[in-house]
Amino acid sequence: MDVQTIELKKTILENNDADADKLRGENAAKQVTYLNVMSAPGAGKTTTILGLLERLKGRLRCAVMEADIDSDVDARTVLEAGFPAVQLHTGGMCHLDAEMSRQGLRALPEDTQLVILENVGNLVCPAEFDTGADLNLCILSVPEGDDKPLKYPLIFSKVDAVVINKMDSLPAFDFDLEKCKDGIRLRNEEVPVFPVSARTGEGMDALADYLYEKVTNK
Amino acid sequence: MDVQTIELKKTILENNDADADKLRGENAAKQVTYLNVMSAPGAGKTTTILGLLERLKGRLRCAVMEADIDSDVDARTVLEAGFPAVQLHTGGMCHLDAEMSRQGLRALPEDTQLVILENVGNLVCPAEFDTGADLNLCILSVPEGDDKPLKYPLIFSKVDAVVINKMDSLPAFDFDLEKCKDGIRLRNEEVPVFPVSARTGEGMDALADYLYEKVTNK
Repeated sequence: MDVQTIELKKTILENNDADADKLRGENAAKQVTYLNVMSAPGAGKTTTILGLLERLKGRLRCAVMEADIDSDVDARTVLEAGFPAVQLHTGGMCHLDAEMSRQGLRALPEDTQLVILENVGNLVCPAEFDTGADLNLCILSVPEGDDKPLKYPLIFSKVDAVVINKMDSLPAFDFDLEKCKDGIRLRNEEVPVFPVSARTGEGMDALADYLYEKVTNK
Repeated sequence: MDVQTIELKKTILENNDADADKLRGENAAKQVTYLNVMSAPGAGKTTTILGLLERLKGRLRCAVMEADIDSDVDARTVLEAGFPAVQLHTGGMCHLDAEMSRQGLRALPEDTQLVILENVGNLVCPAEFDTGADLNLCILSVPEGDDKPLKYPLIFSKVDAVVINKMDSLPAFDFDLEKCKDGIRLRNEEVPVFPVSARTGEGMDALADYLYEKVTNK
């Protein structure tokens, strides 16, 4: 299957925050909701997104932008599952900004209602750049450890929801879910936390319903 | 236990590469070997470093610099295990450069032979900045997936050795060790790969011996 890959042009804008607000306006006019999914490498972004696509099928028209420094394995996976996807190559950049998002959005079907961005796997830099998304989500996985909210404060303070993935691997690791939630709440008191296993499906219905609600009640 | 924490001053040097070479010269004159350990968040850097410290005890005088955006949990852990350690706060920065390394090195015992830096958890940015280290090591953990060398090419191409950690969790994940090694070799044909479990100790003696050899035969 052919994967459309966009080599993003780097944009050094004076004011990315203003451009991000502009992008939110453009998307609102088209009735598009833009969801930015961030995590460390290997936390299960692609598997979680696939689980959401399956659960939202027939309810929302979704499409995916897969951002990576190199490779097109993730866009290929989403396409093979039967959903529109485009691969974005960041040219070595560790994050996406609003104009880079716009370059990808243009390549997606016009009637898309929910665009999901799989950001570059990184808990630091993506939190510093507003992509213009309407919703921001962070995935933390059990094998990474329950102390991550203490070490990467910015990302946890900025997101609208936190997913704790790979709950099925809990027996193999020393991970204290309550301690992890306490760490998250220190950064972001009211943020909803969804413990899931994207692999087994545990907890995924609740996450899909939360997103559906957010998109349709905007 | 009191943890010495250094709030690093950001340095925008014209030429970090030249400064990194200078730092290597300064360390060589003091017979110090500087090891930079990089990985994604939660790959097990601290546990691996602790395992190395135990195995090198009595053979090399080691000390640790723990870099994080926030918290001092890692330096505290190393100190409590009985080894010299200093916490470096990067002030939100996603990587360390040579001058930031130098600020940390000054805080360690003068007779140290091996300084281990636990870099910020990030597979992207730390690979782009030469810390002035003599040896660079990347840890990839089984739960992250065997496709990571395809997605983060730069870091795998630049390191002197790759550690594959959390081998004890292999039954819980779809991880193909040979496929992962093939991906690493695509980026770095000759690089040694050490499959280990820092938690159970599996493979850690070989890694410690490799480092001892590198430090003493410099």
